[in-house]
Amino acid sequence: MELTLEDRLDLYEIPGRYGDSIDDRDWDRLRTIFTEDAVFDLTDLGSRRLEGIEQIVTFMEEEAAHPRTHMMTNIYADPTEYGADLRFRIVALLGQGKTGTASYYDEVVRTADGWRVKHRVATLRRRDKRDAKVDLEGIAL
Amino acid sequence: MELTLEDRLDLYEIPGRYGDSIDDRDWDRLRTIFTEDAVFDLTDLGSRRLEGIEQIVTFMEEEAAHPRTHMMTNIYADPTEYGADLRFRIVALLGQGKTGTASYYDEVVRTADGWRVKHRVATLRRRDKRDAKVDLEGIAL
Amino acid sequence: MELTLEDRLDLYEIPGRYGDSIDDRDWDRLRTIFTEDAVFDLTDLGSRRLEGIEQIVTFMEEEAAHPRTHMMTNIYADPTEYGADLRFRIVALLGQGKTGTASYYDEVVRTADGWRVKHRVATLRRRDKRDAKVDLEGIAL
Repeated sequence: MELTLEDRLDLYEIPGRYGDSIDDRDWDRLRTIFTEDAVFDLTDLGSRRLEGIEQIVTFMEEEAAHPRTHMMTNIYADPTEYGADLRFRIVALLGQGKTGTASYYDEVVRTADGWRVKHRVATLRRRDKRDAKVDLEGIAL
Repeated sequence: MELTLEDRLDLYEIPGRYGDSIDDRDWDRLRTIFTEDAVFDLTDLGSRRLEGIEQIVTFMEEEAAHPRTHMMTNIYADPTEYGADLRFRIVALLGQGKTGTASYYDEVVRTADGWRVKHRVATLRRRDKRDAKVDLEGIAL
Repeated sequence: MELTLEDRLDLYEIPGRYGDSIDDRDWDRLRTIFTEDAVFDLTDLGSRRLEGIEQIVTFMEEEAAHPRTHMMTNIYADPTEYGADLRFRIVALLGQGKTGTASYYDEVVRTADGWRVKHRVATLRRRDKRDAKVDLEGIAL
């Protein structure tokens, strides 16, 4: 599916709108991010696989160990058969001035109500990270 | 007012251009962000309400306790009667590797010189944050 | 050179795509960011001036002291004679929850394969930072 310029702009706004809906605990806005049957896979974060928007909302309201912020960076989109793959990463404040991160791998579809996430994987480690000498030899900061 | 794609791109650039003008102490560039009569309300940050671009520039030059960075995230815009509401959040480095944040709530208008901020509120707490069980029960990180 | 809306979107994606390619150690993707003869000047970071994509890849694979993340913010582009100047800044996680930053100053050109960086300078200090009373008097956080 080809992405129009408007599609791309709409896609780029999803991470920030998602992050703000979580940080505001605004579940009405959160419902505008996902499809009804969306899957949100948090297993790599030590949590579980959520199935459907009701599970996602209940998890966010009652169970999630939320960082203090969902500030999103490195946003870009690639066209796919079903719509688009959307990539972004979180700057997560953790209290006492400490910062953590995670990566999001979204499959997004165009619906009558706009672009919606139908499948999301969140990971602590980069999903496709390669071995490199700088890491094997411990040079990285 | 409907936002064209060009409007949206111009709006998206405002937070980064603003942040860089502050971090560079480049007040000529800062003047291109705001209208002449802009209001910048910093009362929620323990500061005050600035009225007009001269007060804003003087405050930034002489008074502000600037964090080391204004790195902006979660940028999106919604059309309004007067132009657009622009939302974004700062990743603020505070020294010793510590990080803080704040949220910006902008009202932006289209002028002959491009989009300009006419009213900005900066807050430490999210303005529309709801109560949620995860917070009331202290689960959040 | 005038920038179309599509040009601007393509330019905005470069920082995130670059950051992810580094953090994934994905040198095939890194090669899609730069021209063959690109210069990447890291002297301000205490490193050196890399000339050509092979030097850039080898440096990233074997020598660089990478922060844990390249999460990019404050992205905007201005048209120039050769193409565009692209600006952005990194949120760099450094371990133990600490965060650092740097600024990127890119010269980007349009090629048959899309926009590519032909010259990049990375700096710890803002390149064009002015003196301001708040800094001279030590008010900044």
